Amino acid sequence: MSSEERETILSGLKDQCSLVQKLREEKASKGKINEEIEKIKNLKISFDSQLKAIGVSDGSEDSTGKLILKTAKGTRDFQPAQMAVREKVLSKVIQVFKRHGAETIDTPVFERKDVLTGKYGEDSKLIYDLKDQGGEILSLRYDLTVPFARYVAMNKIMNIKRYQISKVYRRDNPSMARGRFREFYQCDLDIAGQYDPMVPDVECIKIMCEILEDLNIGNFVIKVNHRLILDGIFEVCGVDPSMFRTICSSVDKLDKSPWEEVKKEMVEEKRLDEASADKIGEFVRMSGKMELIDKLKETNLSQSKLAMEGLEHMKLLLKYAEIYGCLNRTSFDLSLARGLDYYTGIIYEAVLIDQNTDEKGELIQVGSVAGGGRYDKLVGMFDPRKRDVPCVGMSIGIERLFSIMEANMLKEKTKIRTIETEVFVTSAQKNLLEERMKLCQELWKCGIKTEHSYKKNPKMLNQLQYCEENEIPFAVIIGESELQNGTVKLRRISNREETEVPRSELTDIIKKHLSELM
Amino acid sequence: MSSEERETILSGLKDQCSLVQKLREEKASKGKINEEIEKIKNLKISFDSQLKAIGVSDGSEDSTGKLILKTAKGTRDFQPAQMAVREKVLSKVIQVFKRHGAETIDTPVFERKDVLTGKYGEDSKLIYDLKDQGGEILSLRYDLTVPFARYVAMNKIMNIKRYQISKVYRRDNPSMARGRFREFYQCDLDIAGQYDPMVPDVECIKIMCEILEDLNIGNFVIKVNHRLILDGIFEVCGVDPSMFRTICSSVDKLDKSPWEEVKKEMVEEKRLDEASADKIGEFVRMSGKMELIDKLKETNLSQSKLAMEGLEHMKLLLKYAEIYGCLNRTSFDLSLARGLDYYTGIIYEAVLIDQNTDEKGELIQVGSVAGGGRYDKLVGMFDPRKRDVPCVGMSIGIERLFSIMEANMLKEKTKIRTIETEVFVTSAQKNLLEERMKLCQELWKCGIKTEHSYKKNPKMLNQLQYCEENEIPFAVIIGESELQNGTVKLRRISNREETEVPRSELTDIIKKHLSELM
Repeated sequence: MSSEERETILSGLKDQCSLVQKLREEKASKGKINEEIEKIKNLKISFDSQLKAIGVSDGSEDSTGKLILKTAKGTRDFQPAQMAVREKVLSKVIQVFKRHGAETIDTPVFERKDVLTGKYGEDSKLIYDLKDQGGEILSLRYDLTVPFARYVAMNKIMNIKRYQISKVYRRDNPSMARGRFREFYQCDLDIAGQYDPMVPDVECIKIMCEILEDLNIGNFVIKVNHRLILDGIFEVCGVDPSMFRTICSSVDKLDKSPWEEVKKEMVEEKRLDEASADKIGEFVRMSGKMELIDKLKETNLSQSKLAMEGLEHMKLLLKYAEIYGCLNRTSFDLSLARGLDYYTGIIYEAVLIDQNTDEKGELIQVGSVAGGGRYDKLVGMFDPRKRDVPCVGMSIGIERLFSIMEANMLKEKTKIRTIETEVFVTSAQKNLLEERMKLCQELWKCGIKTEHSYKKNPKMLNQLQYCEENEIPFAVIIGESELQNGTVKLRRISNREETEVPRSELTDIIKKHLSELM
Repeated sequence: MSSEERETILSGLKDQCSLVQKLREEKASKGKINEEIEKIKNLKISFDSQLKAIGVSDGSEDSTGKLILKTAKGTRDFQPAQMAVREKVLSKVIQVFKRHGAETIDTPVFERKDVLTGKYGEDSKLIYDLKDQGGEILSLRYDLTVPFARYVAMNKIMNIKRYQISKVYRRDNPSMARGRFREFYQCDLDIAGQYDPMVPDVECIKIMCEILEDLNIGNFVIKVNHRLILDGIFEVCGVDPSMFRTICSSVDKLDKSPWEEVKKEMVEEKRLDEASADKIGEFVRMSGKMELIDKLKETNLSQSKLAMEGLEHMKLLLKYAEIYGCLNRTSFDLSLARGLDYYTGIIYEAVLIDQNTDEKGELIQVGSVAGGGRYDKLVGMFDPRKRDVPCVGMSIGIERLFSIMEANMLKEKTKIRTIETEVFVTSAQKNLLEERMKLCQELWKCGIKTEHSYKKNPKMLNQLQYCEENEIPFAVIIGESELQNGTVKLRRISNREETEVPRSELTDIIKKHLSELM
C-alpha cells in the first residue's frame, strides 16, 4: 500500500465522518445518518478481521514487548498476613449477619450492561465495560445492590434477608493511600419484603452497630436521615421538585466541604436562588434525637406533607433504636443526604470518631465506615410488570475496616499467624527424609496440622528457626537413636523445652498439649 | 463516501494484508514486516478514533432498548441453598490445605493483558478482555496459576506454599448442564521453592487424595505421568522435537476420544508418519505402578536420556506415595498428558470412578475432578533476569464437586439449612411488636441467633410455619398473660413441646438446650 493510497483512505474516512456530523447538525433522519455510519463501521470491521487473519493484534499492546511487572492500576495483591487480618474481620462480620438470621447468595462478577444502565446517575462513567468479543455486552458490577435487585426480580422473590461479600469495580481515580481502590470488597446485608414501617430498617442500624462494636475499632456515630424529610425541606425552601435530586447531591458533599462551598455550588452551578439556599443551610446544620423532631414540627416544615411523613418514620425509628440499645450511637442529622439516586426512605451512615479533638476541642471525624438506606423502587425497575419489592439495606466499608485493623495491629505489634501448623517434624541427622514423611503421615491421619522440610537433609537450625518465625507450637525431632528406641523428642517452641516421648503415644500427647493451648 | 471509494479502501486493505503474508512466507526481515503491519494498524486506529469522535459505538449494543432479565451467558447466581453446600465443601477443602501448612493470598480479578499473553497456547482466544476505556489494557484472569507466578516474581518470593480460592473466566462454549461455566471457582494449592525431587510433588498428590477422601464423593484414581517420559516416548518414536508439544496435546485428548481418533489427528492433521503414531499408541495404552517402570526400562525407551530421568522421578514419587498412604489411589498412566504448555515435570489428574461398570464389566470414569503438575519455568517468564522459581501445584475442580455434592444431597433428601437462627421470637396476640423487640435484644446480647417477624401483628401460624420450614430449634412465645407473670413459653419446634419458663432465666435455659443439641 503506497503512502498515497493510505492518504486516500484517511481523507475518505475523514470526509465520511464530517458528513455524519453535518447530517446530524441538519437533523437529517436517523435512518439516513445510520446508513452513513454503517459504511464506516463496516470498513472498520474489515480492518479488524484482516488484522486478525494475519495474526496481528489491534495495536493496543505495548509494542516494546517489555513486560511491566505490576498489578492493574488501583488494584493490589493481598499478602498472606493481610489475608489473615481480612479473614478475621470478615468472620466477625458474618457472625453478626448470621446472628440476625441472614442467608447468603452470590451473583456473577459481570452483568449484561443494560442491567447496570440508568442506576447510578453520574457515576455510570466509572463502570468497567468488557470488550465486545462477540455476543453480549457486559460490564463489571459497580456495587452489590443493583445485582441483588436484579436477582430478586428475576427469581420473583417476595422476601429475603441476604448478605453478600464480594468484590466490586469502579474506574475511579483511586487514592490507594486512603484505602480507596478500583477493585474492592463490599459487604452488604439487605432485607427485601413488604413489612411494617421501620422494623427491618432499625435492624439494619442495629446490625451496623453490632459489627462496629464487635470489631472494637473505636468510637462511632450512626447518622440517620430520611429522604422524605430532605424533600420536605427542599419543598418549604422553595426548590423546584425537578431540582430535588441535584440539590440533594450538593447536600451530600457536606461531609467533605464546608457549607459555604456547598452553597456556592447550589447557587452558582445549579442556579438555585440564594434565599432558598440560605434557608436550606439553616436546616442542614441541625442534628439531635427525639427533641429535634418536635422542634422541626414547630417550623414551617410542618407545612410539608412529605416532611411530616418522614418525621413520623424518624420518631418510630428512634423509639425502636432505643429498644435495641443503639439510640446512644444514633444521631438524627439533617446534613446526611447519601449520594445514590435510588434511596426512597430512611438513610444512614456510620462515621468513626477519633478520640482526639482538634484545636477547637471538637471531635475529629475520620470518615464513613458503613452506610445504607431504604430503596423501594429498584426491584420494580427490573420487573416486567414494574412490581416493586421494598428493600432496605446496609453496606460495610470493609476495606476501610481492614486498613484500620492492619494499622492497629502494626501499632500494637500484634503478630498474626498466616499458617496454622501445629507440629513441625524435624530430623537431627542426614538421610531421615522418609522417616520424617512416615511421621507426618501419622500426624495428618489424626488431623494434626503438620509440616516438614521439603529438603532431603535440612539443617536443624533452619528447621527450628522456621518454627519460631511462624509460631508453630511444637517440633518433633527424630534421630538415629530415637528411631532405635522407638521414641521421639517433643520440643515446645515457646520455651525450648524438650521431652522424650514414646512414639506410640506421640499423637495422643500432642493432642492433649494442643487442647491445653487453646 | 461513495461505494467505489469504499471498494478502493477495502481492496487496498486486502492487498496490504496479502503483502504482509507474502513477506512472511518469504521470511523477510521482521523490521520490514512490522513496517507494513504498522500501516494497517495506523489506519485502523484512525477509524476507531473517528468513530469515537462522532460518538458512535462499534455496533455492539442492543438497539432495541428492551431489558432482558438474565445473567450473562455461561454465568449463574448462587441461591442460598447452593451457597450453603459451597461453604460446606470449601471449608473441608480449606481444612486440608491448612493441615498441610498452607497460607492464602488474593490477586485482582483482572491483570494487565501482557501478563497473560503467551501463557495458554491455543486457549488464549478464550480470555475475556476489558474494553479499552483509556489507560491500561486489561484482561480477566484465565486461571490462578499465571497470576500466582506473576505474584511470586513481582514480590521476589523464594518459597511459598499458598492456596487460593477465587473465580476465573473463560469465554468457552459452556455446557452448564455438565457443570462447565464461563465464570467458575478455582481452588489451587501451589508450592514454590527450590527443593529436593518429588518431595513437594508427592505432597500435592497427598493433598488431592485427602480432599477427595474427606468429601466422601466416591471412588477415584489419581493418574500420574511425567512430561520427560512423554518427551522420551516421542523421541524414541521418531517425533521431531519441534512437534513434541503439539503431539502431546493430541495425546491429551485420549481421556475423551478413542486412540483411533487421536491417531487420525496425529497423522492427518499434524502430518506425523503413521509408524511413529503406532509406536506412540503402544506406549500410551500402558498403565501400572512400580512394575511398569521396570518394564519400560526394558524397552527402547531406555535409549532416551529424558525418559530415564523421568522414570527415576516416577520411581521416587511412587515410593513416597506409598509412605503417604496414597499409592493405592495412584496409577502411573502413560496416556495422561495435560493440556497446558507450561508443565515441565510430573503431572497428575484425579478421576472419579463410578461404582457401576459398563457392559464389558469395565469401570466407568465420570471425569476429572482435580489436576496439576510441576511448572519450573513459569515464574522465570516474569522475572526481568529470567530467574526461575520451581513450582508444583494442584487445582481442585471445585464446581464439579459442588454439583456432585448437590446431586447427592438431593438424592439422599438431605435438607441443608441456609440460615443458622436458633430462636424465633413470636407473639400470640396483637400489639406486642415492641415486647418482641425487647426480647430479641436480650437474646442478641447473649450471642443467641435470633429472629422475629418484621410485621406488627403477624399470625401465630405463619410464625411457627417459618420456624418449621427453616428448622429453627426454638420459638419463644409471648402473650399478655406471660408478660404479666414475667414468664415466656419456650417451644421446641421438632416435637412442639412447650414449657413455661421465667423470663429472667430464659437466656440461660436456651443456651443450655442449644449446647445439648450440638
